[in-house]
Amino acid sequence: MQLSGFVELRDALLSALPEGVVVTSPESLEAYRWDRAEDPRAALPAAVVRAETTDQVQTAVRIAASLGVPVVPRGAGTGLSAGASSRDPALVISLERMRDIEIDPLTRVATVQAGALNGEVKRAAAAHGLWYPPDPSSYEICSIGGNIATNAGGLCCVKYGVTADYVLGLTVVLADGRAVTLGGPRLKDVSGLALTKLFVGSEGTLGIVTGAVLRLIPAQPPKTTIVAIFGELGAAMDAVVDITRAYRPSMMEFLDRAAIAAIEDDRHMGLDRAAAAMLIMQIDEGGPEAAAAVVAICEGWGATECYATDDPDEGEQFVEARRAALPAFEKLGSLLLEDVGVPVSMLGELVLGVEAIASRHDVIVSVAAHAGDGNTHPLVVIDRDDALQQRRAHAAYDEVMALAMHLGGTISGEHGVGRLKAPWLEQSLGRDAYELNLRIKAALDPQGLLNPGAKFVGASGSSASEGIE
Amino acid sequence: MQLSGFVELRDALLSALPEGVVVTSPESLEAYRWDRAEDPRAALPAAVVRAETTDQVQTAVRIAASLGVPVVPRGAGTGLSAGASSRDPALVISLERMRDIEIDPLTRVATVQAGALNGEVKRAAAAHGLWYPPDPSSYEICSIGGNIATNAGGLCCVKYGVTADYVLGLTVVLADGRAVTLGGPRLKDVSGLALTKLFVGSEGTLGIVTGAVLRLIPAQPPKTTIVAIFGELGAAMDAVVDITRAYRPSMMEFLDRAAIAAIEDDRHMGLDRAAAAMLIMQIDEGGPEAAAAVVAICEGWGATECYATDDPDEGEQFVEARRAALPAFEKLGSLLLEDVGVPVSMLGELVLGVEAIASRHDVIVSVAAHAGDGNTHPLVVIDRDDALQQRRAHAAYDEVMALAMHLGGTISGEHGVGRLKAPWLEQSLGRDAYELNLRIKAALDPQGLLNPGAKFVGASGSSASEGIE
Repeated sequence: MQLSGFVELRDALLSALPEGVVVTSPESLEAYRWDRAEDPRAALPAAVVRAETTDQVQTAVRIAASLGVPVVPRGAGTGLSAGASSRDPALVISLERMRDIEIDPLTRVATVQAGALNGEVKRAAAAHGLWYPPDPSSYEICSIGGNIATNAGGLCCVKYGVTADYVLGLTVVLADGRAVTLGGPRLKDVSGLALTKLFVGSEGTLGIVTGAVLRLIPAQPPKTTIVAIFGELGAAMDAVVDITRAYRPSMMEFLDRAAIAAIEDDRHMGLDRAAAAMLIMQIDEGGPEAAAAVVAICEGWGATECYATDDPDEGEQFVEARRAALPAFEKLGSLLLEDVGVPVSMLGELVLGVEAIASRHDVIVSVAAHAGDGNTHPLVVIDRDDALQQRRAHAAYDEVMALAMHLGGTISGEHGVGRLKAPWLEQSLGRDAYELNLRIKAALDPQGLLNPGAKFVGASGSSASEGIE
Repeated sequence: MQLSGFVELRDALLSALPEGVVVTSPESLEAYRWDRAEDPRAALPAAVVRAETTDQVQTAVRIAASLGVPVVPRGAGTGLSAGASSRDPALVISLERMRDIEIDPLTRVATVQAGALNGEVKRAAAAHGLWYPPDPSSYEICSIGGNIATNAGGLCCVKYGVTADYVLGLTVVLADGRAVTLGGPRLKDVSGLALTKLFVGSEGTLGIVTGAVLRLIPAQPPKTTIVAIFGELGAAMDAVVDITRAYRPSMMEFLDRAAIAAIEDDRHMGLDRAAAAMLIMQIDEGGPEAAAAVVAICEGWGATECYATDDPDEGEQFVEARRAALPAFEKLGSLLLEDVGVPVSMLGELVLGVEAIASRHDVIVSVAAHAGDGNTHPLVVIDRDDALQQRRAHAAYDEVMALAMHLGGTISGEHGVGRLKAPWLEQSLGRDAYELNLRIKAALDPQGLLNPGAKFVGASGSSASEGIE
């Protein structure tokens, strides 16, 4: 975009939208340059609209469309794949001010605006004895709109499902500025194509979600938390497969040796540094018998320690430890955060393979995983001051993705493809499926204005590695 | 299609496909004219391909595409919306011979061909202690491919979800004859757009599903069956809302007075003919306390009788009674089978409204419902020998759909739109959302060859009413 384009865009936005909605000062724009992926190639936005209504989003999209300016929707900016930053100056439409939440306890739905935080929705539902299950680790700071854009998962989705499973309806602003309502507060609905589902996980490439109707369920039953420590990594993975064949834990998290050590350094919880693996599980059905059976399976696979508690606070401490893995590791350096997933039966092979890749490239890679889903988060530590180490770290990152694909897995389980992984998408899906994606994209966004470069490689798309090196 | 076109199509199919695959004799074609909706306007197929492999489906689609012949995919022919019959002579591609089922107990998935019956998949999974939950009442005779085409629900989906919640991957033959693989045996996958979800419920209008990877879960825990009889319909509906706010029954079925009487006539189970409503519920979590609480809620709303049993056989008898509702009613005459759904809190208004519509038009309408989902099946009895009664019955059928839409509901909760309801789809979705549907359809099937007239009104599309009168 040329400088004259900037001026025209800003003038049009300022004259069409109320005061305070349009952000144009360089200092203020800077706050909208990056999401949490910190894409080194992220550009300063051309302008930011902090929309208060769906109508304002429509106005902004129409102006951008008329000028051919790309539009990047943004929630709370906590994304981990650079889905909400742009590599070219773009109009960023932020939903952060649209945070209304209405609970209908009889129909058991929450009608929310896209900027509402996940944790706010949870609390509003809880006030009526209801529960919104999806719980990404960042639930206190991430927005529902962002959750919808990436089809976010979390810890309890091993039993309770991901964001898509709770989205009954959407309000979406399309590329031409029209707003459509899809679905609604109905638990079953097969009229029309499954467009609500199509927009979930579309990372802002098909439209801008401004509101949603979310399904709520009764509060979670009391749960038992079980922690098991293993001297051997493979044994922990075998325990995961055995447990999930027979029981439905509501949480099934895994930490490897490096993650355990990083948490212990940070929190001094008395975790066993000699352990190769730790499983943190919760089960909320089947009573004491089910919890005892899970313990027995872990012990049968040689767990060196296995501890179960019905105390909610004590249980929450262990879950907190799991959530602390990423922040603890962030203290060790910059991170390349992976999100690869594999069929559950391949989990052991993936984790052992990651270990081998780390050792081959002489880098620290730690694995935390939603083990029950086969979704892993290898964290590759990079040293911003050491170009050679960075090269090795990126090679390891690439190899982890290649390994996941080789094992029949996915390059992204829950964070989204964004700009960081867009270059791998075609290989991951196969050419025909990728081409189908592009046909849908073209049908809904013929000008290619919506979040260009995210998910699908755009004109300036390229790999995270190229970006950083 | 002209007669010469028939000959050309048949010749091309016969020469390209193995012996026995192509059906052309009029008597044999007749068996493929109707599905269970018995659309009076259904045409004799131009030819039928009983495919044995995905490859044969591709060959057949390529031939049809080259000749411009419409293609209608067909599973077990148990559809209730005329989604598998055609109003113009078409090439019917039947999947009935593709019935392979492979269970991977470690990854907990079933890899199946589209023609496998739902009940066959359930049994194959059960042999490994696993469970495929979706359970349409027709589960013993309906195919997984048909379930996928309509996103079929059933009795346990109030807790365990619908077909879409269990489809992890698909093999789909596209309109140009290419076969693509979407998704796979991964519980979480956000790479690419949610195309797997898009194809589920698309009723054969976007592609032909030839195979699927289905998620399995551990066998269902033991359940308590609870039957409650109400003298007043509204009280039963209030009980449904109260129960589902606090508990998660794995079944929550409703029968009205006419349905109770029809079952009693047919089965002599000793059901109370004076009752206005019956709820048949199952609960598989929370132990005896939860079951007792459900009973207490029913009694609190004035249930005249309330019975709970942990005996699986006794419980199954009540569920059988529920499943018998449709067959019992079919003995009373021809039926117009409705499938409207509303927000759960609107269920009482819908059922009472249906009663008023029946009385206003002097026709018998009975309501069975998956009450916990707000999905109802009003059955309108029609007399094929009485043109005036038929007119009244169709007027009632139309009004029930209008009422559901008025209450914020859907014209189809789980049966699909098919040809019978296609004329109502645009009104139901709204113009913009309908237009979005058409854009997706055009992007994936530019020639309009796939199941024309199903879901979206085609050249010869019109209402069920017009068809019959």
